[in-house]
Amino acid sequence: MAGHTLVLTVSYDGAPFRGFARQPGLPTVQGRVEEALGTILRHDVQTVGAGRTDTGVHALGQVMSFDATGDEPAPHDLLRSLNAIAGPDVVVTGVRIAPAGFSARFDAETREYRYRIVPGPVPPLFLRPTSWWVKHALDLEAMREAARALIGEHDFASFCVAESAEGKNTVRTLESVEVYPEEQLGEHSVVVRVVGNAFLHSMVRVIVGTLAEVGHGRRSAAWVAQVIESRDRTAAGPTAPPEGLTLWHVCYADDMWL
Amino acid sequence: MAGHTLVLTVSYDGAPFRGFARQPGLPTVQGRVEEALGTILRHDVQTVGAGRTDTGVHALGQVMSFDATGDEPAPHDLLRSLNAIAGPDVVVTGVRIAPAGFSARFDAETREYRYRIVPGPVPPLFLRPTSWWVKHALDLEAMREAARALIGEHDFASFCVAESAEGKNTVRTLESVEVYPEEQLGEHSVVVRVVGNAFLHSMVRVIVGTLAEVGHGRRSAAWVAQVIESRDRTAAGPTAPPEGLTLWHVCYADDMWL
Repeated sequence: MAGHTLVLTVSYDGAPFRGFARQPGLPTVQGRVEEALGTILRHDVQTVGAGRTDTGVHALGQVMSFDATGDEPAPHDLLRSLNAIAGPDVVVTGVRIAPAGFSARFDAETREYRYRIVPGPVPPLFLRPTSWWVKHALDLEAMREAARALIGEHDFASFCVAESAEGKNTVRTLESVEVYPEEQLGEHSVVVRVVGNAFLHSMVRVIVGTLAEVGHGRRSAAWVAQVIESRDRTAAGPTAPPEGLTLWHVCYADDMWL
Repeated sequence: MAGHTLVLTVSYDGAPFRGFARQPGLPTVQGRVEEALGTILRHDVQTVGAGRTDTGVHALGQVMSFDATGDEPAPHDLLRSLNAIAGPDVVVTGVRIAPAGFSARFDAETREYRYRIVPGPVPPLFLRPTSWWVKHALDLEAMREAARALIGEHDFASFCVAESAEGKNTVRTLESVEVYPEEQLGEHSVVVRVVGNAFLHSMVRVIVGTLAEVGHGRRSAAWVAQVIESRDRTAAGPTAPPEGLTLWHVCYADDMWL
């Protein structure tokens, strides 16, 4: 399969890692997967990830791509070998083949993140590793109204780490921002589901922290339009903690797979 | 509230505990809750649990009762104090009041257990702490057919730890045994849901281990009737591992609560 690109779909628990992106001497998801690939393929492999996730952020459907040399095992065997070596905090859920030149990062059309909040006096148990416990009730209708201001193309400078935005283009397009209740593993939670073409650093977590201000009644739903307008990180709500966030799915054109 | 019974609904992660039932010097769920109650109420408290769970088995809706002396905080405050002290692996999700003489164990009408299996070559990630990964596909239709033989009143001697059954009445009544696919936290799983009046030691785990033999095609669905008939633990399938099992819910008469 030389001349092709191998594409992995990868789930991981963010807790034991210092984020997705490779960093020498630190435990990272990319480092773990590249090390496993090196063991299986017996040569160094450089991968490209669809989205960088921060320390503590999880993924259900991260996508990683790398150039095939032609001596790789069949997809099903590569999946089994990777899971035997890279686990248990990283799980490869799929292996696909794309044309040469495919990039998990640059060919991604949309990225979907889900953020799970557990409201109310009862702390999460089974959802604890993947949620933010806010202790007070949330007004979902107010959060939905506030979320509508975020949909579409906007300058999201207020919603990203200030230093990372300096001198950069901070215009992004959000396709949808949904807020809905969801019972999982028998526990109640609220999910903020955000789909967009690309995201600034910490953008989803600042969106969630801002919507939570509205959900708790500390701010009105109309306030969010002012936050966008101000183009100032200090105008928005706090950054929600990383453990509630999961990179859920990355979309590519359907005709991308061989 | 002297002369009443206080009733806690309790969730816990089975991993860090040596089972539910109090054992001197060992970490148990009952020990942890009684210790927290002692700290809050400033006297020793003896609780009664609806169902003993083994080491590693989880609960979403375990029920524990104890006699009130009248100096307890209001239910909402007791819930908050218990969660501040007993957590994070034990969570009190509800506090109710029942008449004097109420027993979480003897007044329970039905108990519901759910067992989660993750079949196929991809290991569970977010479901890993609460599931059994079986690596091969499962034939759900065959498992459902096999499950039908278990419903109703039977001598379940084949489905419990042999020593614990000796000389004891091993007749129990199962109200339902359901097998269905369920996506949770984005991962695929199969749930075996068992509802009955009472259960023998390890009974649900042996039922699941037996149904899995059928699901994997190693045994026919008709084999389960022979297993029941034999009244011999060695005739049944293996005991499924504890981490897949959760005591999901315990039912009491609706007019039990004050």
